[in-house]
Amino acid sequence: MKIGILTSGGDAPGMNAAIRAVVKSASHNSIEVLGIKHGYKGLIKQELIPLNIFSVDGISEKGGTILKTARCPEFTEEQGRKEALETLKRFEIDGLVVIGGDGSFRGAEKLGRLGVKVVGVPGTIDNDLAYTDYCIGFDTTLNTILECISKIKDTDSSHEKTTIVEVMGRYCGDLALYSALAGGGEIISTPEKKLNFGDICAKLSENISKGKNDNVIIITERMYDIEELQKHLEKKLEISIRSTVLGFVQRGGNPSGFDRVLASKMGVRAVQLLMEGSTRRFIGIRNNRIIDVGFSEINDIDTNKQKEYDLLDELL
Amino acid sequence: MKIGILTSGGDAPGMNAAIRAVVKSASHNSIEVLGIKHGYKGLIKQELIPLNIFSVDGISEKGGTILKTARCPEFTEEQGRKEALETLKRFEIDGLVVIGGDGSFRGAEKLGRLGVKVVGVPGTIDNDLAYTDYCIGFDTTLNTILECISKIKDTDSSHEKTTIVEVMGRYCGDLALYSALAGGGEIISTPEKKLNFGDICAKLSENISKGKNDNVIIITERMYDIEELQKHLEKKLEISIRSTVLGFVQRGGNPSGFDRVLASKMGVRAVQLLMEGSTRRFIGIRNNRIIDVGFSEINDIDTNKQKEYDLLDELL
Amino acid sequence: MKIGILTSGGDAPGMNAAIRAVVKSASHNSIEVLGIKHGYKGLIKQELIPLNIFSVDGISEKGGTILKTARCPEFTEEQGRKEALETLKRFEIDGLVVIGGDGSFRGAEKLGRLGVKVVGVPGTIDNDLAYTDYCIGFDTTLNTILECISKIKDTDSSHEKTTIVEVMGRYCGDLALYSALAGGGEIISTPEKKLNFGDICAKLSENISKGKNDNVIIITERMYDIEELQKHLEKKLEISIRSTVLGFVQRGGNPSGFDRVLASKMGVRAVQLLMEGSTRRFIGIRNNRIIDVGFSEINDIDTNKQKEYDLLDELL
Amino acid sequence: MKIGILTSGGDAPGMNAAIRAVVKSASHNSIEVLGIKHGYKGLIKQELIPLNIFSVDGISEKGGTILKTARCPEFTEEQGRKEALETLKRFEIDGLVVIGGDGSFRGAEKLGRLGVKVVGVPGTIDNDLAYTDYCIGFDTTLNTILECISKIKDTDSSHEKTTIVEVMGRYCGDLALYSALAGGGEIISTPEKKLNFGDICAKLSENISKGKNDNVIIITERMYDIEELQKHLEKKLEISIRSTVLGFVQRGGNPSGFDRVLASKMGVRAVQLLMEGSTRRFIGIRNNRIIDVGFSEINDIDTNKQKEYDLLDELL
Repeated sequence: MKIGILTSGGDAPGMNAAIRAVVKSASHNSIEVLGIKHGYKGLIKQELIPLNIFSVDGISEKGGTILKTARCPEFTEEQGRKEALETLKRFEIDGLVVIGGDGSFRGAEKLGRLGVKVVGVPGTIDNDLAYTDYCIGFDTTLNTILECISKIKDTDSSHEKTTIVEVMGRYCGDLALYSALAGGGEIISTPEKKLNFGDICAKLSENISKGKNDNVIIITERMYDIEELQKHLEKKLEISIRSTVLGFVQRGGNPSGFDRVLASKMGVRAVQLLMEGSTRRFIGIRNNRIIDVGFSEINDIDTNKQKEYDLLDELL
Repeated sequence: MKIGILTSGGDAPGMNAAIRAVVKSASHNSIEVLGIKHGYKGLIKQELIPLNIFSVDGISEKGGTILKTARCPEFTEEQGRKEALETLKRFEIDGLVVIGGDGSFRGAEKLGRLGVKVVGVPGTIDNDLAYTDYCIGFDTTLNTILECISKIKDTDSSHEKTTIVEVMGRYCGDLALYSALAGGGEIISTPEKKLNFGDICAKLSENISKGKNDNVIIITERMYDIEELQKHLEKKLEISIRSTVLGFVQRGGNPSGFDRVLASKMGVRAVQLLMEGSTRRFIGIRNNRIIDVGFSEINDIDTNKQKEYDLLDELL
Repeated sequence: MKIGILTSGGDAPGMNAAIRAVVKSASHNSIEVLGIKHGYKGLIKQELIPLNIFSVDGISEKGGTILKTARCPEFTEEQGRKEALETLKRFEIDGLVVIGGDGSFRGAEKLGRLGVKVVGVPGTIDNDLAYTDYCIGFDTTLNTILECISKIKDTDSSHEKTTIVEVMGRYCGDLALYSALAGGGEIISTPEKKLNFGDICAKLSENISKGKNDNVIIITERMYDIEELQKHLEKKLEISIRSTVLGFVQRGGNPSGFDRVLASKMGVRAVQLLMEGSTRRFIGIRNNRIIDVGFSEINDIDTNKQKEYDLLDELL
Repeated sequence: MKIGILTSGGDAPGMNAAIRAVVKSASHNSIEVLGIKHGYKGLIKQELIPLNIFSVDGISEKGGTILKTARCPEFTEEQGRKEALETLKRFEIDGLVVIGGDGSFRGAEKLGRLGVKVVGVPGTIDNDLAYTDYCIGFDTTLNTILECISKIKDTDSSHEKTTIVEVMGRYCGDLALYSALAGGGEIISTPEKKLNFGDICAKLSENISKGKNDNVIIITERMYDIEELQKHLEKKLEISIRSTVLGFVQRGGNPSGFDRVLASKMGVRAVQLLMEGSTRRFIGIRNNRIIDVGFSEINDIDTNKQKEYDLLDELL
């Protein structure tokens, strides 16, 4: 048996730990592994390299992905997928592990429908796949954000000022939500529970009137023009406010223990599923158990999230 | 309503986040909070301080415990507990939150049987309370251990040598197990799956024969004399080996996001339980849901752990 | 004898270590210390607190400044300085330690000319005081920038892309220069050695043609519109490029050992100078020796800097 | 022209940055570089690999040494050095860069006397080469120690207890001294200023009597049996004390900015010296300038050190 593995979409810390787990587990079960470079692009362009236990030695602690990743518009076309399919046949690959987010999973599902045995492993810092409690990379990025906010608070506290901090997450507020649950900010606005400028201003004003001058306002990206929000608050409250977009530092860095363990468990399960002959299954963790679902279920809404938003009322 | 809160036993990162959550949530529900210093000792000696939302501002990111902790042999005596009870009455405390490990919980249960409304929050890096998937502090310590091992591997790799690393955990192997699941070590021995010197030697010899010279051997504390193990391996394999006891660096440090979120959730639940009139309940997280159990259940064995040990066969 | 101490201007990691050193050294020499909060503003508004060895216990490892800092337009007026002077007289302060950057030093010099015994300690991450090789905070911020770049490189390397990184420094390129000397970037542009868009494009194009696709371009703030530069490069080279402004994470964080030691040495010297009856002296480190200069010398150009820029030709 | 480079003795963070600088600078000057693996052992065993700018891409931020290092008893024999010499001739190496500590330098000097053009770059965390203010690796290890102590202080403070911390340094107290100058400990004992058990006990007792219960006692390795010291203090003062040997975590880790910049400057100078035809020169930094000395001067005592010890009287 021979399996292929690729990472696709934005990189996430822990992807390497998942690659390692797939290779280690495959090796343990006498399965060959080919690494496909640059995601689906490498599948079309036939960029494959053999991976063995020495290729993955020590990688679990490194950020990014040793297999590289890339955007691949060709793959959204039928012609592109046909070429990808041919590569898989030529290299006699019996099963494919795709590590990535929802776009990558869409690609995997399409390949699966063409007859390829394929399983998906969720790697995205945004945590925007509803079917799984955690995606690989989310925990590391949460820690990075909290470390950044801790530094920002040193200055906020010294100057007794408020700072607006924009975090990643695409259309998902989990990074902002968890940062606030962790006590990283005083005011939070996410796509799931969006505050308008007036709400934010009122809450900030209330905090200041209580004597809390150094507030962190955490917002998810893509929701507002951060400078506009800053100016609004400065004008309404007649104070000086700072704003900062955390940006690309959130994506890299050595993965946390949680992400490495999660990636290890998911990587092993991916090999098991392929060995069992399963296909078009997407691995997740739910209720602290590793699970797998079909493509139609990956956007199933996590009913637990509302409870976590309710906690904010108690904590902020 | 007025509640007391104390931290007891060994400190764990995240205890402050739990204190903050209790105070914030209590304040939100118009409940007064008194902090009891030095654990049960402060209860006997009447060391109480009022806590409000300003007392806990910014503490969620700090290691240790602002309430301090101490051993208290007096509290194991009936006389000591009687005095503690009197303090609670004198200060008109309606409910008590105890943050700590199994010893602290034993004390809480005993107080509870004397009529005090008491709830326990699990704070211990050892993760040795079977009823909960995670205790506060475990995740942070796991990250600390992995960072230490990463540094040790720089030297191991440069010298192509093997190092034995002793980690904390008391009688519980979780810190070692998760470090290994994360890819932090090549050989692991824990109380739950103890290898003898011969097993370790055989496994190390096998790795070296495959060309893997820089191995990390992770062992839980209290199992062996680490120097004896080192000498045994050096003599049998005729190589130079290093050993290091990570020691007290594992206990401190700023808590991880995971621990801070966990502590926040548990702190809020603690207040809820006391508001509902519950007592002698011990909070945990199981299947990614916050739960609470009675004292008799805190050592209920986690049946999931064997699966995690099985994973090691695939990953090491 | 009684001395006052204040921090002014932007906060810098290590300011607390300097405060601690002043208090410890003063205490050792039986000198009283009053901390003035919020910089010169607190001097005008009489916000003074006594500081003793317990006030400064454990602060040397904390970012920001426990004395807070603030802008103070009143102090640029004669009337403001007169009020400050009165405060110093009322509290019988014999000498004043001012920790801050060039603006803070200008204020100190003016106070000094009014008869106050005053010494300056350079605390600014920008390292823009020419008379001293290092200012307190610079080393910590350099480390923070390199850690951020390391994370950004994980993603750059995974995507084989280039990122423009804007770092702090005001009108001084030292943070960018040292980041590049440390191997943190492939292309660098600073106020002291400014590249125009064409230069940067040519250098980037050359690197890519050699096979180096993931470049970090480090630029000092205030030089360009970073998005304009990004678009220019994208258009000219027909590739996708990323850009990120590191922002306020650069200012906070626990100070490095270097900054803490430097701050300790400078703090002790500050007390010595005041004990000797010196005034209007500004402490620095030059040639690895603690020195002090008069106000007219603080902008004396460091003739060594050109050599460091020459090194870049060898290293990039 | 062709130069060889090797790392020898204990690894130190920043060695890779020095390797990178040598290769980059050599490449800039059209000089070929051969990397010699495993130190002098690889010179005898002819383990050489070509290094170019791609070999060193991204390594400046990594701990350890990509060239590996090893002990080499053969090289202390004339026969071993003769074989090393033959390797250098066979590979037509015109100059050799040796990165390491005093043992490595002794070897370099001996090779130099046999006619090899050789320069030394000081890489050792112990900072025990008297002729240079800083060795590569010292700054990083100082930061690591201070981070470890910061974690230990979380627990010390929570339990109001004292901990003895043993740090590296071989026979040199600089790591302990600088940790204390940085405010990392309350009591310090080094080879240069050794306290006996009675001194330590008296100082600790004094601190406790003033109300400072959580002290950190920093000692350099090889001076005492740490457990004996612990027991002595516990018995004399009738308190519980903890002790911890930081061990091998001090040696690894990503190098600090300071070490990377220092390594870059020294690496460039090494190439310059070889290009100028110099030999048996050992590079250092003194008075913030890169210098080079002959072998007889490498143990010249740094007269500045006493001043730093004097500072401790003011600061502790």
